[in-house]
Amino acid sequence: MTVISEIDPEFSPQITVVKVGGSAGINYDLVCDDIAALVRKGEKIVLVHGGSDETNRVSTALGHPPQVLTSPQGYTSRFTDTETLDIFCMVYAGKMNTRIVERLQKRGTNAVGLSGVDGRLLQGPRKSSVRSVVNGKQVLVRDDYTGKVETVNDSLLHLLLAAGYTPVISPPAISTEGEAINVDGDRASAMIARALGARQLVILSNVPGLLRTFPDESTLIRQLKFTNLDEALGFAEGRMKKKVLGASEALMGGVEQVIFGDARVAGCVSACMQGQGTVITR
Amino acid sequence: MTVISEIDPEFSPQITVVKVGGSAGINYDLVCDDIAALVRKGEKIVLVHGGSDETNRVSTALGHPPQVLTSPQGYTSRFTDTETLDIFCMVYAGKMNTRIVERLQKRGTNAVGLSGVDGRLLQGPRKSSVRSVVNGKQVLVRDDYTGKVETVNDSLLHLLLAAGYTPVISPPAISTEGEAINVDGDRASAMIARALGARQLVILSNVPGLLRTFPDESTLIRQLKFTNLDEALGFAEGRMKKKVLGASEALMGGVEQVIFGDARVAGCVSACMQGQGTVITR
Repeated sequence: MTVISEIDPEFSPQITVVKVGGSAGINYDLVCDDIAALVRKGEKIVLVHGGSDETNRVSTALGHPPQVLTSPQGYTSRFTDTETLDIFCMVYAGKMNTRIVERLQKRGTNAVGLSGVDGRLLQGPRKSSVRSVVNGKQVLVRDDYTGKVETVNDSLLHLLLAAGYTPVISPPAISTEGEAINVDGDRASAMIARALGARQLVILSNVPGLLRTFPDESTLIRQLKFTNLDEALGFAEGRMKKKVLGASEALMGGVEQVIFGDARVAGCVSACMQGQGTVITR
Repeated sequence: MTVISEIDPEFSPQITVVKVGGSAGINYDLVCDDIAALVRKGEKIVLVHGGSDETNRVSTALGHPPQVLTSPQGYTSRFTDTETLDIFCMVYAGKMNTRIVERLQKRGTNAVGLSGVDGRLLQGPRKSSVRSVVNGKQVLVRDDYTGKVETVNDSLLHLLLAAGYTPVISPPAISTEGEAINVDGDRASAMIARALGARQLVILSNVPGLLRTFPDESTLIRQLKFTNLDEALGFAEGRMKKKVLGASEALMGGVEQVIFGDARVAGCVSACMQGQGTVITR
């Protein structure tokens, strides 16, 4: 396996990017236990987290229930008008991020929380309109604050890592025009791993990895070659599709391994770094 | 006026700490216009913000309306149980902080948002119990996550300022035991100004400054000597009491000037830095 030029091992020793989802069943205490243990051993970790489940809950409680857009290709995303984006910021950058940083601080890890708006950490274009399938018909949705991460302010992350801090990152990102935008956390974590020249990107969710026959956990795929990702996309259901897409983007950008693992069990990050779960390589 | 030893002008040139409240009527667009203009001129600004009004609104909308504790001395504070603290994090560190950073980024200022939990930026003891007056009787309230800032991680702020970032800070702080705690933003900003050896602390709210006869704005006090602060405390009403307390703590810690100003008007930060509002000195 060749390592492409943008990886500079001098500048970013042993950086691992860990993405932990925001779905039901995920145990943040266990994830933080493990990350704190790894940081104590000298590992450089950048944690990226989600918050979708809690955003749904708070949106509903505030009388602004979530609406899902489905693209013609079958990818789903949250319809994000201004009010939804406010709620999104509250849950992701507010409650989830602060509480995860608090958990890590309690465990002795000097965590610093950042959203993609901070220092233009995660930047990219806002979509002018989103193509969506409603009742079998394609429609164009506007007033949607979503987009895609294209550049990462890696110097801010290196500044913090070099000073001994552990960055904890969540969406939103910032658009080229300076607006907060909803972006997919899995794909954002792939861009972060690329920008940092990370060796490994660990993507944790509430399943043990990529399953050949969802939700049968005995059909866990243990190894996958990059060339088979189109096939993988075929049997990735629902939200696993974007994780597979993120994995391919990370690998194409020079990350050596992407590992899908189970955020419901103790030691999940370490286990993934040692080859548990679904290990995807080029 | 003598400058005490903890001010190091070499290390922190021209740092101004600006606190902007979270009350109704405050115009964040105008405040951010002015801060962006000052940063463009080379001023080093650290912005601290509130979010009380919006927290009241969201708390009520979520069916957990705000409860106010009044101390025997007449100071008021928010009763902050776990659920309130979650909402507090959502509004302060989530919505308010992200949206202020977004405003500054849109205006070309490379802002980075932080809560006091990040990097243990604002640390202090959690109160084991809070003495409060209910129906004329003193009671002890427990299960309250509030406390007081005693130490500031100034090295994190210097790290960011030296790299060209403008820190935007909000409560919560972190307790000595590693819990997120509600702290008063005015007094937190005083501790930040002390720790950074700031020359000026500008405290903006929805009045022009300290009024001899509240709410008559023609009774604005333009100059005040530190020795008269006890007197000032006497006619400071409601939430102005903690601002006066914060001012005294900043001045005692070596800050040269504390200026109370009006966050409802254009150019408010610059005006305060040039002596508008209520200028308090030792």
